Amino acid sequence: MAELSIDRFVDLYAHRTSGMSASEVRALFAVAARPEVVSLAGGMPFVEALPTGDILDVVQEVVDQQGAMSLQYGGGQGHLGLRERLAGLMAAEGVIGDPDDMVITTGAQQALDLIGKIFIDPGDLIAVEAPAYVGALTAFGAYEPRYLQIEIDDDGMVVDHLQEAFVRGERPKFVYTCPNFGNPGGVTLSYARRRQLVSLCREAGVPIVEDNPYGMLRFEGEALPALRTLDPDNVLYLGTVSKVFSPGVRVGWALAEQSVVQRLVLAKEASDLCGSSFTMLMTERYFSDEARWRGNLATMTELYRSRRDAMLGAINEHFPDGAMWTHPAGGFYVWVTLPEWFDTRAMLAAAVERRVAYVPGTAFYPDGRGGNRMRLAFCYPPEERIREGVARLGDLLEDEQVLYRSLHP
Amino acid sequence: MAELSIDRFVDLYAHRTSGMSASEVRALFAVAARPEVVSLAGGMPFVEALPTGDILDVVQEVVDQQGAMSLQYGGGQGHLGLRERLAGLMAAEGVIGDPDDMVITTGAQQALDLIGKIFIDPGDLIAVEAPAYVGALTAFGAYEPRYLQIEIDDDGMVVDHLQEAFVRGERPKFVYTCPNFGNPGGVTLSYARRRQLVSLCREAGVPIVEDNPYGMLRFEGEALPALRTLDPDNVLYLGTVSKVFSPGVRVGWALAEQSVVQRLVLAKEASDLCGSSFTMLMTERYFSDEARWRGNLATMTELYRSRRDAMLGAINEHFPDGAMWTHPAGGFYVWVTLPEWFDTRAMLAAAVERRVAYVPGTAFYPDGRGGNRMRLAFCYPPEERIREGVARLGDLLEDEQVLYRSLHP
Repeated sequence: MAELSIDRFVDLYAHRTSGMSASEVRALFAVAARPEVVSLAGGMPFVEALPTGDILDVVQEVVDQQGAMSLQYGGGQGHLGLRERLAGLMAAEGVIGDPDDMVITTGAQQALDLIGKIFIDPGDLIAVEAPAYVGALTAFGAYEPRYLQIEIDDDGMVVDHLQEAFVRGERPKFVYTCPNFGNPGGVTLSYARRRQLVSLCREAGVPIVEDNPYGMLRFEGEALPALRTLDPDNVLYLGTVSKVFSPGVRVGWALAEQSVVQRLVLAKEASDLCGSSFTMLMTERYFSDEARWRGNLATMTELYRSRRDAMLGAINEHFPDGAMWTHPAGGFYVWVTLPEWFDTRAMLAAAVERRVAYVPGTAFYPDGRGGNRMRLAFCYPPEERIREGVARLGDLLEDEQVLYRSLHP
Repeated sequence: MAELSIDRFVDLYAHRTSGMSASEVRALFAVAARPEVVSLAGGMPFVEALPTGDILDVVQEVVDQQGAMSLQYGGGQGHLGLRERLAGLMAAEGVIGDPDDMVITTGAQQALDLIGKIFIDPGDLIAVEAPAYVGALTAFGAYEPRYLQIEIDDDGMVVDHLQEAFVRGERPKFVYTCPNFGNPGGVTLSYARRRQLVSLCREAGVPIVEDNPYGMLRFEGEALPALRTLDPDNVLYLGTVSKVFSPGVRVGWALAEQSVVQRLVLAKEASDLCGSSFTMLMTERYFSDEARWRGNLATMTELYRSRRDAMLGAINEHFPDGAMWTHPAGGFYVWVTLPEWFDTRAMLAAAVERRVAYVPGTAFYPDGRGGNRMRLAFCYPPEERIREGVARLGDLLEDEQVLYRSLHP
């Protein structure tokens, strides 16, 4: 599906479709499916760690006790009992939110789409951290914004650069950031920058969209307060159960002030009427047993920590001089920066030939920069496979380096 | 949630939100929830007729045999096994489609949204039958089209009127219609008009969006060929399991030519990445046992037939002279036209006071016409309640008529 065929309706499509093309991530999912390839590409949680018995209990309870409700339409805002549970889940990260101020979405991805739908007119400026989650760029992109790209470093988004843009008179509709173990950066926004960001945005009248899928997957160190906690009025907070339970239930949410929530609900109803009652009730029940979900989450987090360690160890051992990478304290991703002359997009075919896959850096920037970068995900393959994959990639990088030096003596 | 509060972000919202307001249907769902009110408003299938044991079997099989897959992300096009099953379901209505040419959506509602997303630029003309499904108007409305409204009569959309519009030089991006027991009209597009519609649209280069949620809920008479069957190249066909199985699983689909499907998949990924693997596998399994689903469908269809009969009988008995109504051969709805001076929107409060609810006709027209019309749904309440509700409504209509005549002697 890489190329769209020309068809009889070609003159009928909306302008926004010209920006829609088969993503690099999509092509990679196909590649990564071959068993001989070690995929360090996809960000799939290791759901195999969830005990089958737990899931069976949950779905049997739903069918037995809420059978008709689970098969029926529900309201556009999402099942109240689930919103109450998810408010409890947020509270475990220190984020206080009223269930009335939440809307359940089809994963946090739909919350990004709905935010685009209610805020972005074609040509509107929005600010995004750069690199940013590719799915956020895709969701917002459908509404044809212009982008203000704010670089990240080891402390997350460089808020000074946002400030400079504000001083230049730029006023984005909102600022998008993933402050905890961001995708793809793997870095965490420092406390000082969190305070700087919220006060800067509040003063400028620019809301913040805080995307927090990975916050509960912390391997070490102390959790920092959410942006939403620092400024509840000006931050739209997005959560999801995709990484702490299952992406297959497609349950995420947005927490915002009531006037925003009401618009999100209307946009949600226009998009798909309502979420799945079945998976909403299933998710509510899963999180009703705190010992169960905390136990499973601890198991998964420990697994991800070991896999991160395996990846960082292998990178350290196999990657050539001149490569730099982030050291995530949680989440799924390591972000690698190679010497400027590398082209990770062009190199991908060779990597797949050597049976390893990654996501080229260009996927994470609206303007296609990041050609010397790549995202490596440690969430899904076992440690041994991670080490194998990184070793293969290291060999390739060495060979590329040797070739380059021979051509540029 | 009827009024949106003014808020600090009021200057930041996209232009399209100005057309988003709390719908009449939404307000009614809240009202209809009170047990003393007979709701003839909502179009909820009677899922209570599905045997709990069938659902339990299905979800246990999913967890036991496809546990990890059911909890994981899937591809944007939707699970292949489910597409194959749904291709079989379509074939039962004579619609032949390749699973490769299908995309699974969150109910058919999301297919409507995605069609809006890939076809409609602000100001583009689209043609819709009038009255039309309120959810289609809401979905398309988010992309800010202009509307060409084509009236219906007892034989469905009056295709001559579309032809006249084409002769005038109007060229909509597409024509939207629900040809079988339409919502809210309850009427079925005749065979002659089906042929006229597909040849007219093919000649004009205007694709047809055929929405068919109710086709398998036929009470009597012979099924007519789908528009898609008459012209596979120029018709985008939408299906859903919401009325033949469960809306709580949120499984619908679009069948279209490959170039359209590819764009729908990209738009779907931007909107919510992928559907719920859990409910997709659950739906696939439910439809894997033909005796089971056909048996349950026959039970439900028989139930709806009896309820339709109860409703038509009660309307005939209780509604005043001058009222006209459709006689649906399937589906969920009767569409009532009252004398011109009636205002069903204004009358709704009085109806709810008399413990009966309906949907005012204005909800189903983009321009707010239809003030003397109402949609009555017979799908959910038992026959006795339907008769009660219609009797209450008949009394109200009589009283309104007496009052009107006393004021206009």
